Amino acid sequence: MSKLKVAIIGCGYWGQNLIRNFSDLDDVEVAAVCDVDLNALARIKRRHPAVDLKQNYQEVLSDSRIRAVVIATPVSTHYSFARQALLAGKHVLVEKPLATSSVKVLELIELADKQNKVLMVDHTFLYTGAVRHLKSLIDSGEIGDLLYFDSIRISLGLVQSDINVVWDLGPHDFSIMDYLLKQAPVAISALGIKHLNCPFENIAYVTAHFGSNMIAHFHLNWLAPVKVRRTLIGGSKKMIVYDDMESNEKVKVYDKGITLTSRPEGVLESLIGYRTGDMWAPKLSLTEGLRVEAQDFLESIRQHRRPISDGASGLRVVRILEAATESLARRGQPVELTAASELAQAV
Amino acid sequence: MSKLKVAIIGCGYWGQNLIRNFSDLDDVEVAAVCDVDLNALARIKRRHPAVDLKQNYQEVLSDSRIRAVVIATPVSTHYSFARQALLAGKHVLVEKPLATSSVKVLELIELADKQNKVLMVDHTFLYTGAVRHLKSLIDSGEIGDLLYFDSIRISLGLVQSDINVVWDLGPHDFSIMDYLLKQAPVAISALGIKHLNCPFENIAYVTAHFGSNMIAHFHLNWLAPVKVRRTLIGGSKKMIVYDDMESNEKVKVYDKGITLTSRPEGVLESLIGYRTGDMWAPKLSLTEGLRVEAQDFLESIRQHRRPISDGASGLRVVRILEAATESLARRGQPVELTAASELAQAV
Amino acid sequence: MSKLKVAIIGCGYWGQNLIRNFSDLDDVEVAAVCDVDLNALARIKRRHPAVDLKQNYQEVLSDSRIRAVVIATPVSTHYSFARQALLAGKHVLVEKPLATSSVKVLELIELADKQNKVLMVDHTFLYTGAVRHLKSLIDSGEIGDLLYFDSIRISLGLVQSDINVVWDLGPHDFSIMDYLLKQAPVAISALGIKHLNCPFENIAYVTAHFGSNMIAHFHLNWLAPVKVRRTLIGGSKKMIVYDDMESNEKVKVYDKGITLTSRPEGVLESLIGYRTGDMWAPKLSLTEGLRVEAQDFLESIRQHRRPISDGASGLRVVRILEAATESLARRGQPVELTAASELAQAV
Amino acid sequence: MSKLKVAIIGCGYWGQNLIRNFSDLDDVEVAAVCDVDLNALARIKRRHPAVDLKQNYQEVLSDSRIRAVVIATPVSTHYSFARQALLAGKHVLVEKPLATSSVKVLELIELADKQNKVLMVDHTFLYTGAVRHLKSLIDSGEIGDLLYFDSIRISLGLVQSDINVVWDLGPHDFSIMDYLLKQAPVAISALGIKHLNCPFENIAYVTAHFGSNMIAHFHLNWLAPVKVRRTLIGGSKKMIVYDDMESNEKVKVYDKGITLTSRPEGVLESLIGYRTGDMWAPKLSLTEGLRVEAQDFLESIRQHRRPISDGASGLRVVRILEAATESLARRGQPVELTAASELAQAV
Repeated sequence: MSKLKVAIIGCGYWGQNLIRNFSDLDDVEVAAVCDVDLNALARIKRRHPAVDLKQNYQEVLSDSRIRAVVIATPVSTHYSFARQALLAGKHVLVEKPLATSSVKVLELIELADKQNKVLMVDHTFLYTGAVRHLKSLIDSGEIGDLLYFDSIRISLGLVQSDINVVWDLGPHDFSIMDYLLKQAPVAISALGIKHLNCPFENIAYVTAHFGSNMIAHFHLNWLAPVKVRRTLIGGSKKMIVYDDMESNEKVKVYDKGITLTSRPEGVLESLIGYRTGDMWAPKLSLTEGLRVEAQDFLESIRQHRRPISDGASGLRVVRILEAATESLARRGQPVELTAASELAQAV
Repeated sequence: MSKLKVAIIGCGYWGQNLIRNFSDLDDVEVAAVCDVDLNALARIKRRHPAVDLKQNYQEVLSDSRIRAVVIATPVSTHYSFARQALLAGKHVLVEKPLATSSVKVLELIELADKQNKVLMVDHTFLYTGAVRHLKSLIDSGEIGDLLYFDSIRISLGLVQSDINVVWDLGPHDFSIMDYLLKQAPVAISALGIKHLNCPFENIAYVTAHFGSNMIAHFHLNWLAPVKVRRTLIGGSKKMIVYDDMESNEKVKVYDKGITLTSRPEGVLESLIGYRTGDMWAPKLSLTEGLRVEAQDFLESIRQHRRPISDGASGLRVVRILEAATESLARRGQPVELTAASELAQAV
Repeated sequence: MSKLKVAIIGCGYWGQNLIRNFSDLDDVEVAAVCDVDLNALARIKRRHPAVDLKQNYQEVLSDSRIRAVVIATPVSTHYSFARQALLAGKHVLVEKPLATSSVKVLELIELADKQNKVLMVDHTFLYTGAVRHLKSLIDSGEIGDLLYFDSIRISLGLVQSDINVVWDLGPHDFSIMDYLLKQAPVAISALGIKHLNCPFENIAYVTAHFGSNMIAHFHLNWLAPVKVRRTLIGGSKKMIVYDDMESNEKVKVYDKGITLTSRPEGVLESLIGYRTGDMWAPKLSLTEGLRVEAQDFLESIRQHRRPISDGASGLRVVRILEAATESLARRGQPVELTAASELAQAV
Repeated sequence: MSKLKVAIIGCGYWGQNLIRNFSDLDDVEVAAVCDVDLNALARIKRRHPAVDLKQNYQEVLSDSRIRAVVIATPVSTHYSFARQALLAGKHVLVEKPLATSSVKVLELIELADKQNKVLMVDHTFLYTGAVRHLKSLIDSGEIGDLLYFDSIRISLGLVQSDINVVWDLGPHDFSIMDYLLKQAPVAISALGIKHLNCPFENIAYVTAHFGSNMIAHFHLNWLAPVKVRRTLIGGSKKMIVYDDMESNEKVKVYDKGITLTSRPEGVLESLIGYRTGDMWAPKLSLTEGLRVEAQDFLESIRQHRRPISDGASGLRVVRILEAATESLARRGQPVELTAASELAQAV
């Protein structure tokens, strides 16, 4: 079996990780790296003197040996670069978020279907040992019914020049929630603030509404003095702390909860019982998420199947981003999420 | 100078702390402890065999040697017990929140003024070494302009039988914010959820709006597997992490921030600079907050002055609680805070 | 059943904890508190106005209603105070270490036997939920064969005026090791340093030798900027971290280890396999150790049985202290521990 | 200026880091990578398809364009490989420890002098932002007189096939101590244990004696369930915690200490005062130590000067390793360190 030739488009910080991880795969060859910035290409040349460097994206697209492109360029260019690649008959993996609107994402999904090509979005956390373990814990029923999902992703981050903090950091947590939960949110609320005359929000609080039994909340912040990446997941049977900053023990499962006796009369206090028990931290796979993701892209191409973070996953995340943006503009008023089927028809 | 005779009303968990701290003061005598629960009184008797135990609050009120009462009973009783005490000519310290409505708080404030007695609310965190140090840091201008205040207070807490999580945990953080910030919030948003058929919210997210340059946010949760009490305060010059669960170094000041050059044209990236520097953790007073608070109550009585956590402080906190309650019922719609002066006239 | 009357001798920091814990027991009455320091007695009076305060130890001893004394005085006085109490027919609980030499401890043990009274030493950690759980884990065989015991107990501690850091802090860790391990050490090495012209070592490293398969090591330090109380216990099946500074999860059990295949020839690398698995933190009893210890003292008196931290436990700890002292003077030369039987005969 | 051509000898885990860091330097070219293991070479080829791969060390030595070699092979081969390289006229950077005996290290030092070539040892921690900052703090006098140096380096490490834990982990901490302290130790004690029929110690405790005012201690352990890399440095004015596992704030400086009033008579307690103050964590350079080290190697070659971790630094560390080995065999008896001058004469 010949090696699959891949081109990496955009070689900033994340592009370098993509080059390294695709290079390490057995059946893949990083055949070209493309960037408009000559300095960025020079940096790549130093570590990877053998790779073919391109400044012109069209040269990549017209090279018929290249069967797949990985797009790690600014968000505003995702749609156009992915569309051209699909039209040129390439499989496409796009950095998150997949595009700047759900309409554009839908168009890409339909185009990929028509072209019979893989369309994948780089929701890299879904491929980490931690999130994969969380998925199996929740699916097994061990956690019980989910009561809440509370996520913090803050640091002194690079203020982005083209998107706000929700579009920058939110896709990580929204994609994790989307992957882990069987329910889809029905509405999104968001509040935030634009400091320092910035055109974009640099702090935002996003809430996903699920009806009466579940709530999800996200704190996204570019101005925090400490780096925190922590998610609490409350279940009726057990509760989870997922702390991505821990070098070991990223996932802790607490045998804690409250139990409610359904006694109709009587004081509330007598109905609620606390339960505390052991905590355990399961052993997690240490393989880099991006490596597993690159493998999923490769195998999806080979086996003509959908990857875990497929276009539909990218669409659900972009719809949350759009709803959050609208709610931010309306001072937190909840914005209902149109069901995917309706959205598809509306296009 | 004879010792000031104080009665403690309600001897649950917090009542015992009150007895201990008032007993340790030089010029105070805990002359009586009152509770309707005979078992609670029996527990007190074991550790404090000499104290006068009462089941009847009226006996305390009619004892003219007792000059002050400290009320640590369920929230719904605060107003009535405090009102009776003021009418009986006692100075009053009331557990937080001061009462169940701002109308009742205003009535207590006016009554205390008329009776020329001290009315104080037990906002105990204001008296800790950590919060007092934060106050001096912010007042000195060292932190710069405040950009955000983000607070988390979560644990597997005792679900209360008469109030929701906002009324239970919120007064701590709202009073800290009120004390530290010179600005008052203009509106409150709140979202939350009632799980397990409970009549009250057990998780809530409250946002205080301050206009364009500042936002405050509070995560309050009775269902968390871990205990977190952490506040981030972002300033234009420095940023603070106040972690009350740290045994040492509760306050960390980061010489970090972002700077914005006001260049009218050009890309945004070139305008924003990151600044990272040292972190320091100032030495804090280790005296128990409740001890300092008891001292403030005593000196306010002696010197006919207002304590730090006076009735007005209690009023501002209750108004936030009321607005949060209203916003919860309206699915997060911001509720404007009436200015205190208008509120006073409206009564 | 009438309440057992107990006297507390010495009311410094630890004495106050003793008073509180014995007061909270149902069947005990703290009948007297004795100290030569009038200021210390005045402090006690404030919190415990009903207790009988004494300056003269002989008055306590001659009070026939008092059946037990708890001695929390400076180390150099332990032997004399305990001896007089036993001679006066009292049961005795003595602060650690039990006395300043094993000869004196042996004498107390024999006297207690002769008088048919309980002699107990305040090895308080043995009664904590954490150490009791460790005991059950090790006894169950779940940890496998013990490979090492490594303990750190350091802080910016109060330099003691009559003993070095080994005699001050060592009894905690030596008693824990003695309780948890079935093996007894065969020799003790110790190295340390006396700084600042102090007459006593303020930093010491103590090693307990157990033969070829086990080693124990202790870092004891009064000059550390941070408080650390952490013990690692390595077993052939599992490994334990016991961190007493953690508010929750004091005990963590790691399913980690190394396995050795006994292949006679071949390279070493192929013989050793690493095993990593889950970590879990068992739920621990939260009852204060001193409370459980006071109960053990009471029940030992009532039931004419030996407490867990009996005179023999005190003797084994003092013998380690003596050997460490001798090794310190010999620049770390190992000092063999005489077997207890020989020691008894030698007296 | 033409690029300096370097060959990397040995491409295990550390060899890959060497390749990456030397590749990133502007004026250096990694001209060859050499390993006897074809699989290791194949792994290198995947990431660095352009590099010249060699199985035969002699080919590297005879290539006159290659001016420097970096040796990252098993410890037992260091001496021979370094000697051949120096004889072939190459500059040499050798993985720690520099050789298996001080006699061999001395021979290499003399050979490098004779050949007028740079001989450097890979004491990589000396080049980290943390250790460089510690050096400046100590040199400035801010810490005061050093009282102790306490280091822990433990994890579930790969049991080495040719050396014990002291030779494996010790060079890191011994080189840090050697770099930071102006004093040299006068003797070394060491205790350890060989478990599981291993031929080498897998746990060791090493003490460096400095006379009456200073002690250093090292805990080295391959069998620990958690990874700890922490050094405490106690000074008469300030105290330091250097925790290399912290992602930020690796160095914390505590304004804590004890002060001794030199009052000849009177109780000791009145002579000792405790001082506690702020803690601060200085901003540290985030540049990878190995990068700075590679730069020092390059500039030492260019400028005909000695690097920071020169042959003499390697010699002092190997002498500590030898003394520790001897003390281990003598059950902890202190082994005096011969002064370097005597050692040189003895060869």
